[in-house]
Amino acid sequence: MEKNFVIGGAKIFTASGAVETANIFVSGDKISKITHGSVDGEKIIDGRNKFATPGLVNAHTHASMTLLRSFSDDKNLLDWLQKDIWPIEDKMTREDLYWGAAVAAVEMIRGGTTAFADMYGPWMDEVAKVVDESGLRGSLSQGLISFVNGEKKLASNIELYKNFHGAADGRITIMFGPHAIYTCPPEYLKKVAAAAEKLGAEIHMHMNETQTEIDDCLKNFGKRPFEVVNETGLFELGTLAAHCVYLSDEEIEIIKAKKIRVAHNPGSNMKLASGICPAAKLLSAGVTVALGTDGAASNNNLDMLEEMRLAALLAKVSTLDPKAIPAAQAIQMAAENGAKALGLKNVGRLEVGCKADIVLWDMSSVEWQPNFNPASLLVYSAQSSAADTVIVDGKILMEGRELKTLDEEKILAEFKSCVARLTKK
Amino acid sequence: MEKNFVIGGAKIFTASGAVETANIFVSGDKISKITHGSVDGEKIIDGRNKFATPGLVNAHTHASMTLLRSFSDDKNLLDWLQKDIWPIEDKMTREDLYWGAAVAAVEMIRGGTTAFADMYGPWMDEVAKVVDESGLRGSLSQGLISFVNGEKKLASNIELYKNFHGAADGRITIMFGPHAIYTCPPEYLKKVAAAAEKLGAEIHMHMNETQTEIDDCLKNFGKRPFEVVNETGLFELGTLAAHCVYLSDEEIEIIKAKKIRVAHNPGSNMKLASGICPAAKLLSAGVTVALGTDGAASNNNLDMLEEMRLAALLAKVSTLDPKAIPAAQAIQMAAENGAKALGLKNVGRLEVGCKADIVLWDMSSVEWQPNFNPASLLVYSAQSSAADTVIVDGKILMEGRELKTLDEEKILAEFKSCVARLTKK
Repeated sequence: MEKNFVIGGAKIFTASGAVETANIFVSGDKISKITHGSVDGEKIIDGRNKFATPGLVNAHTHASMTLLRSFSDDKNLLDWLQKDIWPIEDKMTREDLYWGAAVAAVEMIRGGTTAFADMYGPWMDEVAKVVDESGLRGSLSQGLISFVNGEKKLASNIELYKNFHGAADGRITIMFGPHAIYTCPPEYLKKVAAAAEKLGAEIHMHMNETQTEIDDCLKNFGKRPFEVVNETGLFELGTLAAHCVYLSDEEIEIIKAKKIRVAHNPGSNMKLASGICPAAKLLSAGVTVALGTDGAASNNNLDMLEEMRLAALLAKVSTLDPKAIPAAQAIQMAAENGAKALGLKNVGRLEVGCKADIVLWDMSSVEWQPNFNPASLLVYSAQSSAADTVIVDGKILMEGRELKTLDEEKILAEFKSCVARLTKK
Repeated sequence: MEKNFVIGGAKIFTASGAVETANIFVSGDKISKITHGSVDGEKIIDGRNKFATPGLVNAHTHASMTLLRSFSDDKNLLDWLQKDIWPIEDKMTREDLYWGAAVAAVEMIRGGTTAFADMYGPWMDEVAKVVDESGLRGSLSQGLISFVNGEKKLASNIELYKNFHGAADGRITIMFGPHAIYTCPPEYLKKVAAAAEKLGAEIHMHMNETQTEIDDCLKNFGKRPFEVVNETGLFELGTLAAHCVYLSDEEIEIIKAKKIRVAHNPGSNMKLASGICPAAKLLSAGVTVALGTDGAASNNNLDMLEEMRLAALLAKVSTLDPKAIPAAQAIQMAAENGAKALGLKNVGRLEVGCKADIVLWDMSSVEWQPNFNPASLLVYSAQSSAADTVIVDGKILMEGRELKTLDEEKILAEFKSCVARLTKK
């Protein structure tokens, strides 16, 4: 696989959010040089009529849930979860997790995603295997629910950390995944915090997703979720908080003080009718707001271009401010903020010294015409199938829409067998 | 061009909103038979692994505004309109309107749209030419603004009707296009109503798009827009009302009483931060709510699949009801309701005797897997580039992504010349 090459003559999305024509030199796993003007020589990827952005980062998903895409939609949350999703999840095997995550990897690469934060389980080692083989980056966590094998799952998250943190040339990192305040009471969260602290691990947790969650928390603990969790010490470790739909001003202060990174999931929050995360307000307050798809059962895809669009559109209509989350900021949320959300250093920017995680978007199709502003076009008009070439850690995972690391045909065939077995009456 | 053929073994979206495997026989411009089981013989389009839906109807757009796509985004409405959009529109020529609409036609066919309601001008005869040549259906209206050549424009709309209503084998229909209450005072609307009534023409008008429009109307007339317009007699003629974001209960009663069809434009309303049309409430009240993209300068594409998705997602999050606008209803809004909105008879349903306006969506790519529910997948997961084959009036406009009626390369080249001239400093 080519590891030293130059992308010549592309429009590039710079670290400051501007667009300029430039050449990106890749040496090993890094961007070694960015120049303007012409380039010659060998190993040139033609960047003309391509828009180069940092790889997109899916800051909150449950990759293997691709298995349940389109299985249950347009239902009340509890009917959806308890009657349709959980009974099938109960039947899942180690193989299902692998093939579900493999399909997610195919879909993510095809849509310009280069890294993802995953919370699921058990058998997250299968997802780690997919990360290793696909060439993607993954920040994986075992979903922890205290009342279903809580101790065993915590042990499994510890094991996962020991076996995989920093694996695959550092492309795999491991976090701890306490599911949510309504599935993990404070005493359990303290245990999670102690275990994670011992290893130096960070936290990935659902926070404040629905009004019901807030109401129940107030009833049970007399305080709101961020306040309850804050007292357990969990937030001292570095936290990626998914959803954050309903937030009091006091909770925003906790988010700021503890430097909590927020994963905003507009598609899932809209589809499940959870509510609207105050993303623009959080960004104004200096919070790192990244974007996630959530699982494919509640989205129903892993398309980060769509999440950028939804984040920008939803911010505008919910604040009645057409300037809220402009296109360039939406890209930065999906790329640079996503990398920060996952705790990745020197990822998410097209800058010398940064990791070479790059997507080339093909700007030739009709919805890119005319082309006054590639950033606007990517966020407001393009389809993610415009992702032409995807590079992670200097390695080409897709070129000209052809996958280089994964056997899509075999993966889809195995995946379909898994789905057939899982849904057999 | 093939006019008698059968689509064999497709998943079809039935008139009742169900999905079943069937064969669709096309004779002349109509669906002549729908059967189940196997088919043989010649002229079979392989429908296996395809999802057949009625052609999508873009119920509100300004096609030639593709010329201004990505020219100005993320701005306040007045800055956008007055500083950026209007000065360039002032420079547009007859040729610009033609090539802008031609690019729109390419984009619409490529995205599974088979009919559109257009309001723009002058030179709507150029748009009619594009409709004729492309094979699409178009319901065209001259945008009427009383204080800029109001009389001349009305005369031009009359001329347009006389020359083109029913042209292109009935694929072209003409409506009258009074722009909005803030650009067309009641006295002018009465003139428009008189002219349209004389011809038996229907009306296409922007209504209640922004809170400013409502406030100004209340200030100027002491009543809300639907009440003011209702008194002019305009609504007696059959009306397609675009936007309808801010509606009082009394205005909803007028909409019901006058059988006004609403074109909901979620993408544009979100991007311009106009507000949220109460689409689910209107549908429950029995109102025909269709979907539109608005112009490409405020969307920024003409992708009806995206509008279905936004309509479904926005309805759910704004009502906090995950069952609001389920997938099948979103498709019906885009197809059947769209046809009704445009005043088209026997269009928008896959049913014997209806016009053969059909889209075959390719379900082979990863975001369609697994495939429990093609309607859900189309609305929540697919990309509009999945449109594989597009048929209007029994004629194939695209097959296997190849355009049959339009020369895309030539159109894009001419379009780029227009854009370069328009934006030359």
